[in-house]
Amino acid sequence: MNDIINNFPIYYDAVILAAGDFPQHSLPIKILRQAKKLFVCDGALANLLKLNITPTAIIGDGDSINNTLKQRFSDIYHQIEEQEENDLTKATRYALAHIDKELIGKQLPRFCYIGATGKREDHTIGNISLMMYYYKELGIIPTMITDYGYFHTSNGEHTFSSLPKQQVSVFNCSCTSLKSEGLKWDIYPMKQFWQGTLNEALANSFTINGNGFYLVYQTFAQKE
Amino acid sequence: MNDIINNFPIYYDAVILAAGDFPQHSLPIKILRQAKKLFVCDGALANLLKLNITPTAIIGDGDSINNTLKQRFSDIYHQIEEQEENDLTKATRYALAHIDKELIGKQLPRFCYIGATGKREDHTIGNISLMMYYYKELGIIPTMITDYGYFHTSNGEHTFSSLPKQQVSVFNCSCTSLKSEGLKWDIYPMKQFWQGTLNEALANSFTINGNGFYLVYQTFAQKE
Repeated sequence: MNDIINNFPIYYDAVILAAGDFPQHSLPIKILRQAKKLFVCDGALANLLKLNITPTAIIGDGDSINNTLKQRFSDIYHQIEEQEENDLTKATRYALAHIDKELIGKQLPRFCYIGATGKREDHTIGNISLMMYYYKELGIIPTMITDYGYFHTSNGEHTFSSLPKQQVSVFNCSCTSLKSEGLKWDIYPMKQFWQGTLNEALANSFTINGNGFYLVYQTFAQKE
Repeated sequence: MNDIINNFPIYYDAVILAAGDFPQHSLPIKILRQAKKLFVCDGALANLLKLNITPTAIIGDGDSINNTLKQRFSDIYHQIEEQEENDLTKATRYALAHIDKELIGKQLPRFCYIGATGKREDHTIGNISLMMYYYKELGIIPTMITDYGYFHTSNGEHTFSSLPKQQVSVFNCSCTSLKSEGLKWDIYPMKQFWQGTLNEALANSFTINGNGFYLVYQTFAQKE
């Protein structure tokens, strides 16, 4: 499994750290350490500082940060009071407006999301579903990395790198036609999320072909 | 918030313990301790035994339990090899076949799910979506309890107990008409899961009215 972790892309146009469970796994920690543009939701700042990492900007509604930290980082703290969107979306919109200008118009920006799961389960569900919103509506290519694995959004035909016996789940979002090659069980246009779980890669890649959008989760660990 | 925890139902026709994060919160621990019928997925057995709780039955595919435990509990261990369903569904089907017979035909059985979130996020999503499957297809009234809050499945019009400023999320599963009374923000037939998050109860109850199925999450903590 080290092959997956060693070859995992670590550079993104923006890295966004949310206030769910702070990562323990070496891969998300490495990505945080090497991020050129790191946007952090205010509730995650204290844990980030314990690693001696200073973010590019801190975003939040001011509820989740104490006044000492707010004053210390007042030059990079951006308080956004708006109630309609959660902190992850506020950070994403802020980051989109502050990525390197030379990227714009060239290619879709790649964003990495860390710390977006754990703690309140409604936030976990909301944040995972937001990956698809960012992909479809904001023109971002999001990767969400947790301590257990990673999510990619996709549509149409896409080939994913994998390892034999890597555990894979495919969550159908809008496909009425959905097929796989290289997975242990052939997928179909599943109507329930649980129907897409418990699959497994057979070799070093697998291909999904759908006529709509879907979310793919791959674990760091291979089945024994 | 103690009112919510003190008044929470603790008796169920079956309690099912899955192998996600083992509960830390006093409420799920109390429910485990007082369960009359406790069905445990084999991966969760070792942690359950640390609390000196012996389950009614242990269900699994045999992968997640060592031979010592398997032999020690051979009289209540039920190995189910079938690959199509996950351990939570295997435990649920087994429990359905072993609840008190006098319940059958009288009312829908109430099942409590504990330890079904945390660790692999694809399992968390799958297990939460399974609550709706059990409700719609197996005729169970499921409650899922985590360390942060609880999920209920419902359809049509339903009034939920709450406390002022309790955080609430409503996940629309199949409603094309969906309304609320008693929540801070009026809900609508949301098409994305994230759209139903970040709501809040105004008082001691709220009512949802939908023409299909929906999932409601309520936190243990009130907003400060």
